Amino acid sequence: MSGHFSVIKKDLSTSARLGRLMTAHGIVETPCFMPVGTQGTVKALLPRDLKELGCQILLANTYHLYLRPGHELIRQLGGLHRFMGWDGPILTDSGGYQVFSLGAMRKITEDGAHFQSHLDGSSHLLTPENAVEIQEALGSDVAMILDECIPHDATRDYVEKSTARTIRWAQRCASARGKADQMMFGIIQGGRFENLRRACVDEMARLPFEGFAVGGLAVGESEEELNAIGSFTAQLLPQDKPRYLMGVGRPQDIINGVRAGFDMFDCVIPTRNGRNGTLFTWEGKLNIKRAEFAGDRRPVDESCGCYCCRNFSRAYLRHLYMAGEILSSQLNTLHNLYFYHRLMDKCREAIRVGANAGWPNEFAAEAVS
Amino acid sequence: MSGHFSVIKKDLSTSARLGRLMTAHGIVETPCFMPVGTQGTVKALLPRDLKELGCQILLANTYHLYLRPGHELIRQLGGLHRFMGWDGPILTDSGGYQVFSLGAMRKITEDGAHFQSHLDGSSHLLTPENAVEIQEALGSDVAMILDECIPHDATRDYVEKSTARTIRWAQRCASARGKADQMMFGIIQGGRFENLRRACVDEMARLPFEGFAVGGLAVGESEEELNAIGSFTAQLLPQDKPRYLMGVGRPQDIINGVRAGFDMFDCVIPTRNGRNGTLFTWEGKLNIKRAEFAGDRRPVDESCGCYCCRNFSRAYLRHLYMAGEILSSQLNTLHNLYFYHRLMDKCREAIRVGANAGWPNEFAAEAVS
Repeated sequence: MSGHFSVIKKDLSTSARLGRLMTAHGIVETPCFMPVGTQGTVKALLPRDLKELGCQILLANTYHLYLRPGHELIRQLGGLHRFMGWDGPILTDSGGYQVFSLGAMRKITEDGAHFQSHLDGSSHLLTPENAVEIQEALGSDVAMILDECIPHDATRDYVEKSTARTIRWAQRCASARGKADQMMFGIIQGGRFENLRRACVDEMARLPFEGFAVGGLAVGESEEELNAIGSFTAQLLPQDKPRYLMGVGRPQDIINGVRAGFDMFDCVIPTRNGRNGTLFTWEGKLNIKRAEFAGDRRPVDESCGCYCCRNFSRAYLRHLYMAGEILSSQLNTLHNLYFYHRLMDKCREAIRVGANAGWPNEFAAEAVS
Repeated sequence: MSGHFSVIKKDLSTSARLGRLMTAHGIVETPCFMPVGTQGTVKALLPRDLKELGCQILLANTYHLYLRPGHELIRQLGGLHRFMGWDGPILTDSGGYQVFSLGAMRKITEDGAHFQSHLDGSSHLLTPENAVEIQEALGSDVAMILDECIPHDATRDYVEKSTARTIRWAQRCASARGKADQMMFGIIQGGRFENLRRACVDEMARLPFEGFAVGGLAVGESEEELNAIGSFTAQLLPQDKPRYLMGVGRPQDIINGVRAGFDMFDCVIPTRNGRNGTLFTWEGKLNIKRAEFAGDRRPVDESCGCYCCRNFSRAYLRHLYMAGEILSSQLNTLHNLYFYHRLMDKCREAIRVGANAGWPNEFAAEAVS
């Protein structure tokens, strides 16, 4: 597989680039943000509402769909796109991240990750081979290799051994592939150690992947470390393939990632924070629970064109939140994802125009905290 | 106020009629169904989705909005329509039904109903006068008088005294009115006693109301009693004013109500049952939780044109329900309200065409259980 990604323009003063990812379900303009649809739904949003707000590509979680309703069932029903009523591109993770989050309920061997289901305690083994098989059954446009997401405080010795195993797993994933219209991305680990990150890139970039992700970030390290490791690693990756900064993040982290040369991002922040009543605006975040909004007739953000801001006041949104209404999650999620997609629009526009004419840093990285 | 309602056509073989209710926020074709938006939102649906499925008029609950966020706040924010982003007609109940549901937490005197808030235990007094004032603050298109919703097993003595008080309260409501563009409906009580229902109609119909509702039904009595009392009372009501059968009901109850001459209906069944996984189809109800649907690629109802049925399988809807996803409530509610609105379309069409050519009884009253 080749020719899936093209860089349209490179920014002169940063490492940012404008690109285009060609998938079996359409083209994705990059840099892009992928809303998280953990269990085959972006929580509280109809697919048509996602389309309307400009969503180009979704992320779905292999771990969750494997356990419930099961990848074989989804295959029989025509694949994940048809199952969830989304005809645009989908990227699936490998399941590794969730498995490693299980803590005491999992054990790693050379074979793969042995774990117990969080649903019923049943025992499972996730290997590189079945991570590929599951993602092929789901039929995503982009599959991820199985990797170990290393805790940010791991010792150098652990990180070195784990990263070497992730590389062996990547080779096994590459060998196991069988679906011509599904891309696969390698994942760079190596923790906070530049040498290990570099060594991982050297090995991973030799494998026949259509793109590369940087993993093991946004797992509790400092903002400085996230930026430093992210930026360092991005520069080592092939120029002609998409670069995905996994699990990142806040608006300012995404802008930093774009400037560092990343093309793809995903994070639960806009959706999860929305359900918890935290709303993004171009003036900063707003906690809709606060009493000061009880009589506030303004929309969340007067400059925002989303359905929520065009029709509802902060007072109404606060009421819905306080009353525990489902509509609270619906409207807050819709607004936050609209914000994130406009953020990406602005990033792409900044690269298109040239960084001097309004790089996103000026309108969000500092304002949004 | 007059001229708010016109009967377009009367059915020859039943008491059904086709009508048109003119409100300050538009015309409602009757017979109509009003989805329940208890706390200023029809749970799990955006107002634009309600519009799309053909909703003409909503019901909102005075009791809930009075306690939270408060009617004065809603008045300051421009009224309930603007608050909830719904520019179509709204009917508000008087709050009486919820108050009487509080059981031990309320006490009735000639003044009104003394009750404690289910939210914080605070003490309140709901009088006929402030029931009117609250509904005027909300700015609904149709307000209801304060009445006592009598338990279906009350003694004749209790029903007689309570109904007499409801009539006195109705007079006080009529005197308290001050909003020219808001209709007010009287409510007929009288329990299961035909003489008391008749006496109540005699008194109530003398008062200057724009419509009349029949209350105290759908509170646990038998289907036979519901039909008998409903039908008996409908025939006593003025021909030229809208008739509203409160809190009814199941599809077959609504069809029976239409045949008895009622014009308006409301019920939580389509929304609440939707959230609980019960879906209406023209072949009968379907419990989406059932294992038999796990791999079922058919839509809920192959004859249904709603967004849910056009895009999603029973298998997906079951998955969403089992996984506890918010989208489950959204899609199920959307489908059920679509069904109810098509039921009303078919009722109106049956009257328009004439009962011999496809009265709803044939397609739903028996099939849907």
